[in-house]
Amino acid sequence: MSTAPWRDPALPAAARVDDLLTRMTLEEKTAQLYGVWVGAATDGDGVAPLQREMTADYDWDELITLGLGQLTRSFGTAPVDPALGARALARAQRRITAAGRFGIPAIAHEECLAGFTAWQATAYPVPLAWGAAFDPPLVEELGRRIGEDLRSVGVHQGLAPVLDVVRDPRWGRVEETIGEDPYLVGTIGSAYVRGLESAGVIATLKHFAGYASSAGARNLAPVRAGVREYADVTLPPFEMALREGGARSVMAAYNETDGVPASADSRLLTELLRTDWDFTGTVVADYFGIGFLQTLHRVAGTEAEAAHLALAAGIDVELPTLKCYGRPLVAAVREGAVPETLVDRAARRVLLQKCGLGMLDEDWTPEIEQDGPVELDSAANRALARRLAEESVVLLDNPDGALPLAPDTRIAVVGPRAADALAMLGCYSFPSHVLTHHPEADLGIAIPTVLESLRAELPDAKVTFAEGCDVSDPGTAGFEEAVARAAEADVCVAVLGDRAGLFGRGTSGEGCDVTDLGLPGVQADLLDALLTTGVPVVLVLLTGRPYALGRWHGRLGAVVQAFFPGEEGGPAVAGVLSGRVNPSGRLPVSVPRVPGGQPWTYLQPPLGLAGEVSNLDPTPQYAFGHGRSYTAFAWDLVSPDTAEIGTDGSYGVTVAVRNTGDRAGTEVVQLYLHDPVASVTRPDVRLIGYRRVDLAPGESRMVTFHFHADLSAFTDRERERVVEPGALELRAAASSTEVRAVTRLQLTGPVRRLGPDRVLRCETELD
Amino acid sequence: MSTAPWRDPALPAAARVDDLLTRMTLEEKTAQLYGVWVGAATDGDGVAPLQREMTADYDWDELITLGLGQLTRSFGTAPVDPALGARALARAQRRITAAGRFGIPAIAHEECLAGFTAWQATAYPVPLAWGAAFDPPLVEELGRRIGEDLRSVGVHQGLAPVLDVVRDPRWGRVEETIGEDPYLVGTIGSAYVRGLESAGVIATLKHFAGYASSAGARNLAPVRAGVREYADVTLPPFEMALREGGARSVMAAYNETDGVPASADSRLLTELLRTDWDFTGTVVADYFGIGFLQTLHRVAGTEAEAAHLALAAGIDVELPTLKCYGRPLVAAVREGAVPETLVDRAARRVLLQKCGLGMLDEDWTPEIEQDGPVELDSAANRALARRLAEESVVLLDNPDGALPLAPDTRIAVVGPRAADALAMLGCYSFPSHVLTHHPEADLGIAIPTVLESLRAELPDAKVTFAEGCDVSDPGTAGFEEAVARAAEADVCVAVLGDRAGLFGRGTSGEGCDVTDLGLPGVQADLLDALLTTGVPVVLVLLTGRPYALGRWHGRLGAVVQAFFPGEEGGPAVAGVLSGRVNPSGRLPVSVPRVPGGQPWTYLQPPLGLAGEVSNLDPTPQYAFGHGRSYTAFAWDLVSPDTAEIGTDGSYGVTVAVRNTGDRAGTEVVQLYLHDPVASVTRPDVRLIGYRRVDLAPGESRMVTFHFHADLSAFTDRERERVVEPGALELRAAASSTEVRAVTRLQLTGPVRRLGPDRVLRCETELD
Repeated sequence: MSTAPWRDPALPAAARVDDLLTRMTLEEKTAQLYGVWVGAATDGDGVAPLQREMTADYDWDELITLGLGQLTRSFGTAPVDPALGARALARAQRRITAAGRFGIPAIAHEECLAGFTAWQATAYPVPLAWGAAFDPPLVEELGRRIGEDLRSVGVHQGLAPVLDVVRDPRWGRVEETIGEDPYLVGTIGSAYVRGLESAGVIATLKHFAGYASSAGARNLAPVRAGVREYADVTLPPFEMALREGGARSVMAAYNETDGVPASADSRLLTELLRTDWDFTGTVVADYFGIGFLQTLHRVAGTEAEAAHLALAAGIDVELPTLKCYGRPLVAAVREGAVPETLVDRAARRVLLQKCGLGMLDEDWTPEIEQDGPVELDSAANRALARRLAEESVVLLDNPDGALPLAPDTRIAVVGPRAADALAMLGCYSFPSHVLTHHPEADLGIAIPTVLESLRAELPDAKVTFAEGCDVSDPGTAGFEEAVARAAEADVCVAVLGDRAGLFGRGTSGEGCDVTDLGLPGVQADLLDALLTTGVPVVLVLLTGRPYALGRWHGRLGAVVQAFFPGEEGGPAVAGVLSGRVNPSGRLPVSVPRVPGGQPWTYLQPPLGLAGEVSNLDPTPQYAFGHGRSYTAFAWDLVSPDTAEIGTDGSYGVTVAVRNTGDRAGTEVVQLYLHDPVASVTRPDVRLIGYRRVDLAPGESRMVTFHFHADLSAFTDRERERVVEPGALELRAAASSTEVRAVTRLQLTGPVRRLGPDRVLRCETELD
Repeated sequence: MSTAPWRDPALPAAARVDDLLTRMTLEEKTAQLYGVWVGAATDGDGVAPLQREMTADYDWDELITLGLGQLTRSFGTAPVDPALGARALARAQRRITAAGRFGIPAIAHEECLAGFTAWQATAYPVPLAWGAAFDPPLVEELGRRIGEDLRSVGVHQGLAPVLDVVRDPRWGRVEETIGEDPYLVGTIGSAYVRGLESAGVIATLKHFAGYASSAGARNLAPVRAGVREYADVTLPPFEMALREGGARSVMAAYNETDGVPASADSRLLTELLRTDWDFTGTVVADYFGIGFLQTLHRVAGTEAEAAHLALAAGIDVELPTLKCYGRPLVAAVREGAVPETLVDRAARRVLLQKCGLGMLDEDWTPEIEQDGPVELDSAANRALARRLAEESVVLLDNPDGALPLAPDTRIAVVGPRAADALAMLGCYSFPSHVLTHHPEADLGIAIPTVLESLRAELPDAKVTFAEGCDVSDPGTAGFEEAVARAAEADVCVAVLGDRAGLFGRGTSGEGCDVTDLGLPGVQADLLDALLTTGVPVVLVLLTGRPYALGRWHGRLGAVVQAFFPGEEGGPAVAGVLSGRVNPSGRLPVSVPRVPGGQPWTYLQPPLGLAGEVSNLDPTPQYAFGHGRSYTAFAWDLVSPDTAEIGTDGSYGVTVAVRNTGDRAGTEVVQLYLHDPVASVTRPDVRLIGYRRVDLAPGESRMVTFHFHADLSAFTDRERERVVEPGALELRAAASSTEVRAVTRLQLTGPVRRLGPDRVLRCETELD
């Protein structure tokens, strides 16, 4: 008896899948189009809101006789010992393969925003900290390590990275993003994807697209954006992560833009993604996102209509669990309301991906060693977490050298974030995301606090502590003690910031949006109170978003900004305070002066900047790209300061950077484009290249940016991406406002329309 | 010798103008395309910012030998006795007609946002107050009266109304708008246009288009909006005011939308306006707006390029004075860079308008009586100003009947707005707009304050007064006296609010934007201090925008909201406080609970409302359409509560409204559309009809709304305006959230695409 073609590893995947599809019933094909969230509670409090009403009833044993597309968060739902979890997942896969006619396993997916969202797994710095590190190779290693850990327990797909570009820092999910610049998000995000995919794990680009721009920064609120903002700010990171990262999956976003929900947008999910960008992987729904077309967007009257809209638009897989793509979809196809070809199209994509993972092969096994140990927080992981944390801490200000702290000084550590391990973690960390529902479980990983770390870092210092206040509660009873501790010390280290959580349980995180950028709770008042002592105050912020700091301009000894720096964040921050670590982080988001006035990011045409026509000055307190060092750098432009190139040409800008101080340090050399006149309004400056440069005292290195004219492209009035002739300025700079060397280019030749092969990246060279 | 054809009144205007154009030099044609601002200073402080650098040098006597398109603000630049001003204007016209070869006078334009912006002219309530009055016939009378006053002194064109739809109440120009609903703005704005045009004055619709949506509400900041928001919210008031009002001019807006400045947008100014909407009047620039294409938007590299862009897009006239359309344009045409046909196109439109005004006729004269008296603030004007003010005051809350005030009570009037006449006026009133530069001049009109008016209104009351604090300064030294006055009284009337001004000189007005909606200065703290007395506090707000009131929810005796109610606003407010006037205003903008969280207006699809996916609840403190009365009303649905009509059908909804109280009052019967499922997301509700109903005690009247299916239309994914079949709800309501009677309609038949003949208005009938 010959093997069926679909089982034959010698045949091309397309042929195998086509054969398989002819053998499957409608129900079996549809079963490949949803996940099942086995551990999720349907009867009460859960990880996600709306969990109860958005989940269909089903009988697991009966369901899996049809096969199953995905298994949802076997590890990310409750604290499970990783080894036990891996064996349970393997067991579930064996049941699935045994129950169905074809014996095809499910793709297991997990969250991995800042590390594998699982108990006892490494909690790395959040993506906003990756943005601050400006270090793609390190983030690629991060992706690889996370991928290897996922693979080690049988997980195939990770729901990361978030490629949303910050448009309003009040949004709760800012901590999950890489920042407010699409080039930074695209380059760092692509590095993460390369790493994850290099470990064999499917990266899932999210949220496609526009989610970060919700009006008023309320999570999922409608997005008001035009086609040019969409094309030039929202989409480029996705394009780069597909082309340069090779991501195999994309997640449709919850939001609507200008009335059209992304999850029902065939122009986005099919025309752009598949036709223009040649994407061949799977498009998955954000959790409950298909059902939301009916219940929250109201563009569908029934679950079947929601399924139809999503499937037609191009969503292949419903997550986290079956709802619209279950019985409603099958019934609609049976009634002729939905063409079966749409089911086939999606099932083909899913099965092609499974074929690529070996899941159609007869010898597929879960590949988990039955009794082997599982280590998800190895020493190597921790070392990486430490290095990334150290690179991501931003020294915003240090006007009089309050930092580094003297080793034998009296330090009053004050503030609600100083002694809480959770102050280091974002909302998608396992402790913040899941453990809040499991108070019986311990953290699962060691997370030294800033207080503990500073005591360890400076053993000869006299360190006292007072919490002062809570993160968000209004009580000020603790102010008196805090002020007393500060008054007795040589320096006060005020550790303020956010508590990450989900859906109102935190001050930052998914569903934890804010109406302005004032520090949460009474922390601003605590800081004012500490300043009355006259003792120098070093402000350390552990936050998920930037907060307005203009109120304290010129009054603080130093300001250190860390964005949820992960399990090794305490030692990293302490290292910066002590001087062991020379800070090298740069702001991936602007830090505003005043709490109100949003939305604003640095990508502004002239009228978005300060001017005479409004009394309001949106100039931030600290600009995008800003960050100080304990050493100093001198810059020189080596290449000519003017040049002429064609609209298809390129040009190398070389700057020499020298460490003029007496200690080793790292400069982040940034390149910004200024386009003086264009056919549509353009940002005054935008980032088009960057490179970290480590320099010993006195050392000088040359950085060359290989600028290509394509990098000046934008979407014109005809919605074409064009390079226009004319003048350009390339500004080598230490931040978006600290320009060190200007090269004036004249682009000559015709207007060029660019296709999908355009140059996306400014390559850099270090001599 | 025969008369030239262009001088022959018997010929059609087009023939006359075509003949004239053949006779004119390029310079003469171009001279018709700009105004001249004779009185404006070019050497310092002026009415408009950037005045100095945006004005070309010219010699008046030489200039007018070419003719002249417009004369800018002869009255609105400095305090000029109206009779003297009229004679000066006539003299200028005679010089212009004498100097040029063709003897064609200039069109004289003035501002008339809330009355003729001239010294001694009536200062009516601002447009936001018109919105609150929900009374188109009264606003039509207002337009007519303003037009007659303009005509009486030789002015031809008024730069009003503002048809911008509020999208973010932090914007300084909210006071100049009619509110946050396009149907309200369109119907009230059209009424104003009808009135102005009925007096023979050219109405100028502004700002075309999108200006109100600037990001962060900073004046002129870039607008992030998609095509559907633009089509369904921004543009409809303009369409209505052209079709139903017959406006003869449109002003191009300053702003860009999604990268394209309106002043350089041929799709907007030509394709939509002229081709789709058949507009034949003139498009004028906003002041300096053409030059801004170079200096602020940077889509033009030179003045000539700016002129080319604007002229090609469809701006016919540069205002306020010549700059780009002067020598730069002539030179560019001479060099072949700009086709002369573009100059001809614009000059033809200007000359056709002048022909219509009789300005090509040999017997044209300035029509100003040389020595006649001029009265711009007649008793009839004042009566109208009073009535509109009275109708526009909104009683937001009166939980325990603190209002009306007893006639013989002890009243502490407190607050920085109680005793300042300017508290009544918006930024485009002559006193706020111009007199600030002329401290030597008196107000020119009588403007009783709230304090004076209340003393007059309640002669038996014991009224004390303390200012308490300034509008915007941070000093709190006056709190103690204010609290003392309040503590001695039976009731405290706190009169708080805005100071209107331009470009940072006020808390509301053009260029006076805010970062959040907290009351200006320390007024919130003053209110808190007054509440410590335990004496009931009646809050009276005289503002240009809504402010957050959630902080005082449940703590105030009553809340009265007036939007800069004009010269008779004091007596109107006092009348509401005393009970002489039964309040009938309704909110044209939502009043928020908290200061932050913008942008938000009531036009929200479900995800823009409160929900489980964000912790933030944007529900306002007082909803759009809300307003209380001293009497009560009962509503009954008279027509059937369900019906089926075609997608081209109509249906009459009839409600009976009865005054169940013991005093006469006015209910504003509102009709909202709720569209449960559509192909794009739709606002949960939106206003589609309204009618003021005056009712004697016990009286009942029937209001019928003639709903046409076209009123449910929206812009679909293909950017077509369509009526879709399906379910609709028509909600007869006392505000956008206080629903009194629901009619469920089923629309049957095909999807209908609508053309420019679509039904725009829901006609109402009163039995």
